[in-house]
Amino acid sequence: MDQTKFTLEEKEMPTSWYNILPDLPQPLPAVLHPGTGKSVTPDDLAPLFPMELIMQEFSPERYIEIPEELQAIYRTWRPTVLQRAYRLEKTLDTPAKIFFKYEGSSPAGSHKPNTAIAQAYYNKKEGIKRLTTETGAGQWGSALSLACMFFGLELKVYMVKVSYNQKPYRRIMMETWGATCVPSPSPDTKAGRDVLAENPESPGSLGLAISEAVEDAVGRDDSHYSLGSVLNHVLLHQTIIGLETKLQFEKAGLYPDIVVGCVGGGSNFGGMAIPFAKDKIDGTHKDLKIIAAEPESCPTMTKGLYAYDFGDVACMTPLMKMFTLGHNFMPPPVHAGGLRYHGMAPLNCHLLKLGLIEARAVPQMATFEAGVTFARSEGFISAPETNHAIRAGIDEALKCRETGEGKTILIAHSGHGHFDMAAYDAYLSNKLEDYQYPEDLVKKALDSLPQTPDQS
Amino acid sequence: MDQTKFTLEEKEMPTSWYNILPDLPQPLPAVLHPGTGKSVTPDDLAPLFPMELIMQEFSPERYIEIPEELQAIYRTWRPTVLQRAYRLEKTLDTPAKIFFKYEGSSPAGSHKPNTAIAQAYYNKKEGIKRLTTETGAGQWGSALSLACMFFGLELKVYMVKVSYNQKPYRRIMMETWGATCVPSPSPDTKAGRDVLAENPESPGSLGLAISEAVEDAVGRDDSHYSLGSVLNHVLLHQTIIGLETKLQFEKAGLYPDIVVGCVGGGSNFGGMAIPFAKDKIDGTHKDLKIIAAEPESCPTMTKGLYAYDFGDVACMTPLMKMFTLGHNFMPPPVHAGGLRYHGMAPLNCHLLKLGLIEARAVPQMATFEAGVTFARSEGFISAPETNHAIRAGIDEALKCRETGEGKTILIAHSGHGHFDMAAYDAYLSNKLEDYQYPEDLVKKALDSLPQTPDQS
Repeated sequence: MDQTKFTLEEKEMPTSWYNILPDLPQPLPAVLHPGTGKSVTPDDLAPLFPMELIMQEFSPERYIEIPEELQAIYRTWRPTVLQRAYRLEKTLDTPAKIFFKYEGSSPAGSHKPNTAIAQAYYNKKEGIKRLTTETGAGQWGSALSLACMFFGLELKVYMVKVSYNQKPYRRIMMETWGATCVPSPSPDTKAGRDVLAENPESPGSLGLAISEAVEDAVGRDDSHYSLGSVLNHVLLHQTIIGLETKLQFEKAGLYPDIVVGCVGGGSNFGGMAIPFAKDKIDGTHKDLKIIAAEPESCPTMTKGLYAYDFGDVACMTPLMKMFTLGHNFMPPPVHAGGLRYHGMAPLNCHLLKLGLIEARAVPQMATFEAGVTFARSEGFISAPETNHAIRAGIDEALKCRETGEGKTILIAHSGHGHFDMAAYDAYLSNKLEDYQYPEDLVKKALDSLPQTPDQS
Repeated sequence: MDQTKFTLEEKEMPTSWYNILPDLPQPLPAVLHPGTGKSVTPDDLAPLFPMELIMQEFSPERYIEIPEELQAIYRTWRPTVLQRAYRLEKTLDTPAKIFFKYEGSSPAGSHKPNTAIAQAYYNKKEGIKRLTTETGAGQWGSALSLACMFFGLELKVYMVKVSYNQKPYRRIMMETWGATCVPSPSPDTKAGRDVLAENPESPGSLGLAISEAVEDAVGRDDSHYSLGSVLNHVLLHQTIIGLETKLQFEKAGLYPDIVVGCVGGGSNFGGMAIPFAKDKIDGTHKDLKIIAAEPESCPTMTKGLYAYDFGDVACMTPLMKMFTLGHNFMPPPVHAGGLRYHGMAPLNCHLLKLGLIEARAVPQMATFEAGVTFARSEGFISAPETNHAIRAGIDEALKCRETGEGKTILIAHSGHGHFDMAAYDAYLSNKLEDYQYPEDLVKKALDSLPQTPDQS
């Protein structure tokens, strides 16, 4: 009998997150205040986030303990399974060993609760009663709804109106967990009212939803804002994924040759890649290949500029040094909504600059082809975002078929596709197409980059 | 640290199903041929099912080995987790210990693949190339699509037209796994064409879909028919649930006082209850209480007649002795589509008659209230069918709050509710209501019971 699933006992679950900041061979570029051009201070961020999260953002500690109350909630679905994809290997006729780390078993169906729950916890601990956030297709909004339910926090989610109308199921999930979800633009904020006054039929945008959520949080003493990706503390919480995976490989007596993940804001990829990047930095596994797979139509890491830019369309965030397509860039409407982001977690960008990871852009049709191959081999139907990682993993396995190498390939599987069946329908009925790389739009958006001292 | 999840290693997974037939204190009443009134023979069933499944239907063997090829596929998601519901206990402020056995982690999201995969396997082994089946809301159709994918069988699913149009996501799941799904009535069978000729706008019914699937299978040498509940061999395959659970309790040093499950055709309930019923029969756990929870609007076990009846509306099946509301009874449109069945697995009915299990009817609103309580405690959003089991489990836990007893309650959790969010929306926005017990309709349907020798 060949073992399929590599499980960990609850008592084997890591009790600390891994913070790569102190191990980086070169320090991460500072985050800048857009008004002064100087490094942001913890106090600058205090209206939005609790101090413990802000401290994590800049922490010099290599390991940060996961509070027991948080571990108890992780144990609802963690440790998650590391699974050998025997049937996929057979379908591909490859000598490669393919593994996937499955985050779809969380109640929200993705890796997002790993940080949502941590953020809710630290806010609750600081006496905050209420959080606000934005959501596009609803993955993050539903994960934070779950988290706020666990800690008895109120939550208001501003959901981009076009998604609110087209994709009601994620909204209903949020409401089932007790959150309030309103379409953005909403009449509840000045930002929303201004847009509605100009165009009552506005479909909204993620940038505007962020503006509404931030305005709401800043305007109330009992409220904070919460962000689902990009920031260091978000990636920190996600390292539980990579830390568990390393233990699971150790138990199996294996170590991967190749790690692949999908990137939008970069939290799932970072959560898996960062603990493995440590092994490249300290030289224990110098030859490990770590690949970030992004949409060809939103090729931040492969075609973007490494420059200081805003994290949001509305220019309300601090400036971060990252690969960016320009904060004004509006990506084509690919089904992988979670990957439609102009920027990228600065940590991932720094790792790319240092040559510790590499990036690859994949076209939409090829990702769905990979997702269907996966579903028809392993059974599990994956999110369109995840299909980018699966595509990259399959491509590496096909290379092994050519060369005859039995490499060990690890796919970071970020979540299931149960709320994305319409996208599969479009693919299966030949209604899906690839988007060309929107060169003109990117060029125009990059012209809008802010001026900062070291915009090199 | 309190353990939340009780997992089994793959090597601890049971390697046989448990067949209760030889252990029954009184034999199960025979299945009758409707034409002759005599017991059906294996040959009568051969046009529909492979001989190994037919033999399992009547087997005198206590344990039936699960073939290794099948075990390998079970290992894709099995053993499933037994989980302690600490937060639900806290919400209910009960001294009871509540556990749930979670079948929602299968790729199809329910327990249905446990038998679907076995049925596909034995058909494949007999040289069958193609299966047909019917599906209502799509749970069974998608599970069998998954199973046929694993074994390279063609599958045609006749899906009740009203569901086909209203609930496209399950259809897309089936297609993602490579099955063909058509709305019933279809022009592909005589049964379908007859109905369409009379009324081209017919919304279809489960009874008609069965007729189409059976006609299709009988008419082709390469095809068989597959049924997702009711029959002995289906419940046999589902005993993997109860067998695993018993091992998990054993590892935890516990044994339940109360086992609850939901019943429609009865396969999830039977799969959990039968291995526990064995302990009541052999006297090792005489005081164990086993409760079947059914919809108040379709109260087969609590208000039905124990009599010979057809399994389908179209009177094509053999006659089975069971609790029935009459094969002509059309249950009200509750959201728990999987529980809308006029009859009940004869094995479960026999256990009820013998006093080994008991039955309870619960109204729809109360089941959603229980489901939301569960989601707001444990995180997981459950199927409307499952919410019937959760309701019964919560009610038992609330009784413990009154009496102060710390009983151990086990809920058979049959699957997640990711494709049922519209039902939650209706509940949360106060658009849901209870259906009165349809006494007149049942009375009329019971008048249509077939005449057989021992219709007592």
